[in-house]
Amino acid sequence: MNIKDIASIVGAAYGGEDLEITSMNALKDAKEGQLSFISNAKYVKDIAISQASAILVDEKTKEYVPDNCVALVVDNPYMKMAILSKSFAPLIEDSRLDKAIVGEGTRISPKAEIAHGVRIGKNCTILAHVYIGTSCVIGDNTVIYPNTTIYRDSIIGSDCVIHSNTAIGADGFGFATNASGEHTKIYQNGNVVIEDDVEIGSNVSIDRAVFGSTRLQKGVRIDNLIQVGHNCVLGEYSVLVAQSGIAGSTTLGRNVVLGGQSAIAGHLTIAPFTSFAARSGVTKSIKESGLTFAGFPLMEHKPWLKLQSKIAKLLK
Amino acid sequence: MNIKDIASIVGAAYGGEDLEITSMNALKDAKEGQLSFISNAKYVKDIAISQASAILVDEKTKEYVPDNCVALVVDNPYMKMAILSKSFAPLIEDSRLDKAIVGEGTRISPKAEIAHGVRIGKNCTILAHVYIGTSCVIGDNTVIYPNTTIYRDSIIGSDCVIHSNTAIGADGFGFATNASGEHTKIYQNGNVVIEDDVEIGSNVSIDRAVFGSTRLQKGVRIDNLIQVGHNCVLGEYSVLVAQSGIAGSTTLGRNVVLGGQSAIAGHLTIAPFTSFAARSGVTKSIKESGLTFAGFPLMEHKPWLKLQSKIAKLLK
Amino acid sequence: MNIKDIASIVGAAYGGEDLEITSMNALKDAKEGQLSFISNAKYVKDIAISQASAILVDEKTKEYVPDNCVALVVDNPYMKMAILSKSFAPLIEDSRLDKAIVGEGTRISPKAEIAHGVRIGKNCTILAHVYIGTSCVIGDNTVIYPNTTIYRDSIIGSDCVIHSNTAIGADGFGFATNASGEHTKIYQNGNVVIEDDVEIGSNVSIDRAVFGSTRLQKGVRIDNLIQVGHNCVLGEYSVLVAQSGIAGSTTLGRNVVLGGQSAIAGHLTIAPFTSFAARSGVTKSIKESGLTFAGFPLMEHKPWLKLQSKIAKLLK
Repeated sequence: MNIKDIASIVGAAYGGEDLEITSMNALKDAKEGQLSFISNAKYVKDIAISQASAILVDEKTKEYVPDNCVALVVDNPYMKMAILSKSFAPLIEDSRLDKAIVGEGTRISPKAEIAHGVRIGKNCTILAHVYIGTSCVIGDNTVIYPNTTIYRDSIIGSDCVIHSNTAIGADGFGFATNASGEHTKIYQNGNVVIEDDVEIGSNVSIDRAVFGSTRLQKGVRIDNLIQVGHNCVLGEYSVLVAQSGIAGSTTLGRNVVLGGQSAIAGHLTIAPFTSFAARSGVTKSIKESGLTFAGFPLMEHKPWLKLQSKIAKLLK
Repeated sequence: MNIKDIASIVGAAYGGEDLEITSMNALKDAKEGQLSFISNAKYVKDIAISQASAILVDEKTKEYVPDNCVALVVDNPYMKMAILSKSFAPLIEDSRLDKAIVGEGTRISPKAEIAHGVRIGKNCTILAHVYIGTSCVIGDNTVIYPNTTIYRDSIIGSDCVIHSNTAIGADGFGFATNASGEHTKIYQNGNVVIEDDVEIGSNVSIDRAVFGSTRLQKGVRIDNLIQVGHNCVLGEYSVLVAQSGIAGSTTLGRNVVLGGQSAIAGHLTIAPFTSFAARSGVTKSIKESGLTFAGFPLMEHKPWLKLQSKIAKLLK
Repeated sequence: MNIKDIASIVGAAYGGEDLEITSMNALKDAKEGQLSFISNAKYVKDIAISQASAILVDEKTKEYVPDNCVALVVDNPYMKMAILSKSFAPLIEDSRLDKAIVGEGTRISPKAEIAHGVRIGKNCTILAHVYIGTSCVIGDNTVIYPNTTIYRDSIIGSDCVIHSNTAIGADGFGFATNASGEHTKIYQNGNVVIEDDVEIGSNVSIDRAVFGSTRLQKGVRIDNLIQVGHNCVLGEYSVLVAQSGIAGSTTLGRNVVLGGQSAIAGHLTIAPFTSFAARSGVTKSIKESGLTFAGFPLMEHKPWLKLQSKIAKLLK
C-alpha cells in the first residue's frame, strides 16, 4: 500500500516521495517497509530500536521520530491504526491460490473443507466438518478432530492432536474506542504458529496475532475450554489446565503449569518451570524459575495456604 | 392453542368460553392472547400491569387475578408452565417454509446449511459448516466464520462478525424440579436478537430467551468462551472479556465493561459505563454510572485494592 | 496383545508363558486379561482387590504382586503405561465395520457425518455438521444440535438433548512427564456413557475415560461451557451451571448442584443433594448430604457469608 494513500486515509500531511508499505507492526518489531504507531508515551523508547519506515504519531511524540523514518502526524494514532488495519486485512478466503497440496497417507474427510493455498503433510487425519483456511500449513502425522476451525495463515507442526470444536486463529480481541464509547475494529492480520508435538483439547480458543504470531512451542499441552489471547508465546512443554486463560501478549517460559480456572493478565513474562495452582490470578511477571504460586492476588503457594488459615480464624 | 386444551393438560377446571392462546410470556410482559403464570408471591404486583388473557395460579394467588383474565388454578404453577412450554415449542426445523432468500453479493459455502424461511442480506460471507436455522434473519455485510451455529428465529444485524464455533440461540438453562428432584424442561420459545456492528468471538454461548428475546445492542464486543444467559440485554458498545459470564435476565447499560473471568448473577441491572475488573463477581444491581468495581464479594476497585493489602497483613 | 510384546515394548524381563492382554485398566478395576500398573505406593492396597493378569511395577513394589499375577518390573511404571497406551488405542475411525443402523422416524441431516458401526434409535433428530464417531450407540427421541461432536464408542440414552458445538468423548487430559519435562500422551481408551433424559448445553467438553467410562446418570442437566474431566460420574439429576468444571475421577451423588464458575478437584466424592454456590472451589470430598457450600477455600454457605462480612471490616 502506498504511503500517500495511507496518509490520505488517516488525514496526515505527507509531501515526501512514494513509498510502498507492506504491512503494519508493533514499534519494536517493525522492519523496513512496515508502518507502526505510537499510542502511549511509555513506548517512545522503542522508536530507537524500530526499523519501521513510517510511524503514526501525534504532535507530542513526532519529535522522537528519526530522520530516516516518516512521521505521519495524526490526532489519535491508536484509532488511526485501527482504521488502517482494515486496509491491510487479507481476503477471508482467497480462491485465486492453488488448490491444497496433500501429502501421502493423509486422510481428509469429504465433509472437511480445505481452502486454497493449503499445504498438508503426510499421514495426517482430518475429520469431518474441519475447516482449514487459506494458506494454512500442516506438518506430518497430525490429527484434527471434527468441527475444529483453523483460520487462514495458521502454521501447525507435525505430530499434533487438535480436538474437536476448537478455534485456532480467530481474531484477537482488539478495537479502538472513541470519546463517545464507539468501537472501531483492529483487524488482526497476524497468525498462529503451533510447533510439533502439541496437543490441544476441545472448545479451545487460540487467537491470531494482531501483528506477527501467537506461538505455541514444541510439546505444549492444552486442556479444554481455554483462552489464549493474541500474541501470546507458550514455552515448550507448558501445560494449561481446563478453563484457564491468558490475555494478550504474555510469554510463558518452558514447562509453565497453569492450573484449572487460572488466568494470566496481558503483557507479562513468566519464568520457566513456574507452577500456578488452580484459580490463580497472575497480574505481574514472574522472574524466578521453579516456584509455585496460588491465589488472587497471587502469592507463593505456602504463604497462601497459611493466609487462608489466618483468614478462617477471623470467624472466631 | 385453545384454553380448554391447556386447562386439560394442566388439570385445571375451566368452564368459560373458548379462547385462543398464542404463546406464553412472563407476567409483566404478557399481552392479550398470551398465557402467563405466577410462581412466587413477590410477583403478585405484576398482575396489575399484565395484559395476559390467562394466568396459571395456585389457590393462594388466584384472588389477585382480575375479572377480565382467566385464572387457571393448579397446584404448582411453575411446573405446569414447564409442562405446557412443550406444547408451544416450534418445530426444530420447518421445511414447509420457503427456501432461504439471499441478497446480492452474499457468498455462502456449499458446506454451510441454511434452513428454510431464512433471509440473508447483501454482501455477507457465510463460511463452511455454519448452520443457520429456520426463519433466521441476517442483515448486510455480516461475516459468520466456520462451525458456528445460529438457532432458529435468531435475528442478526448488519456489519456483524461472528467467529467460529459459537452457539447463538441454544436453549436457556430452564427446568422445573419436583419434590423428588426430577427435572422437567422449560422449552425456550423466545429468540436472540443481535443488532448492527456487533462482534462475537469463538466458542461463545448466547442463549435464546425463554419468552421474548435475549438482545445484544449495537456495537457490543464479545471475546471468547463467554456465557450470556437467556433474556439478558447487553447495552450498546458493552464489552465482555474472555471467559466472563452473565446469568439470565440481567440488563447491562451501554458501555459496560466486564473483565476476564468475571460473572454477573441473574435478574440484575447494571448502570451505563460501569467497569468490572477481572474476576469480579456481581450479585447486586449497580445504580450509579461510571464506577469501577472488583472482587467477590464485589466492592469498588479502590477499597478492594486496599482490602487486599489489609488481608495480606494478616500473615504478619 | 501378547504379554511378550508388551514386555518387549517396556523393556521388562519376561520368561513366562504366552498370555493375551486385552486392554489396560486401573488397578482396582482391572479384570482377568487386563494389564494394570502401580505408580504410587499408596495404591499398593489395591493390589489385593485387583484381578489384573499383569501389573507394571518398579523394584520397590514388585514384592506386593501375588503369584497368580505377572509382575513386569520397569523403572517408571507410569511412563511405561503411557507408552503402552498407544498400542491399545483403537483406530480413530473404523470403516471395516457395518454402516450405521438407524431407527424408524429418525431424521439425519445429509450434512451430518455418521461413522461405521453406529446404532441410532427411533425418532431422533441429528442436525447438520454433527459428527457421530465409530461404534456410538444412541437411544430414541434424542436431539443433537449442529456442530456437535460425539467421539467413537460413546453411548447416549433416550430423550436426551445435546446442544450445539459440544464435544462428547474427546481425550481426557493425560500424559506422563519425564525428568526433562517432556510429555508422553496417555491414550484415552475408555468412553463416555450418557443415560436417559440428560440435557447438555452448548460448548461443553465431556472427556472420555482413560479406562472404563465417564458417566452422566439419568436426568443430569448441564449448562454451557462446562468441563467434565475423564472418569467422572455425575449422579442422577445433578445440575452443573455455566462455566463450572470438574477435574478427573470425581463422583457426584444425585441432585448435586454446582453453581456457575465453580470447580471440583479430581478424585473426590460428593454426597447427594449437596449444593455449591457460584465460584465454589471444592478440594475435599463431602460426606454429609444436603448441605450448601461456598467459597474457595470451601466452607458452608452461612459461615462463608459471615466470614465475608468479617473480612470487609478489615477496611475500617
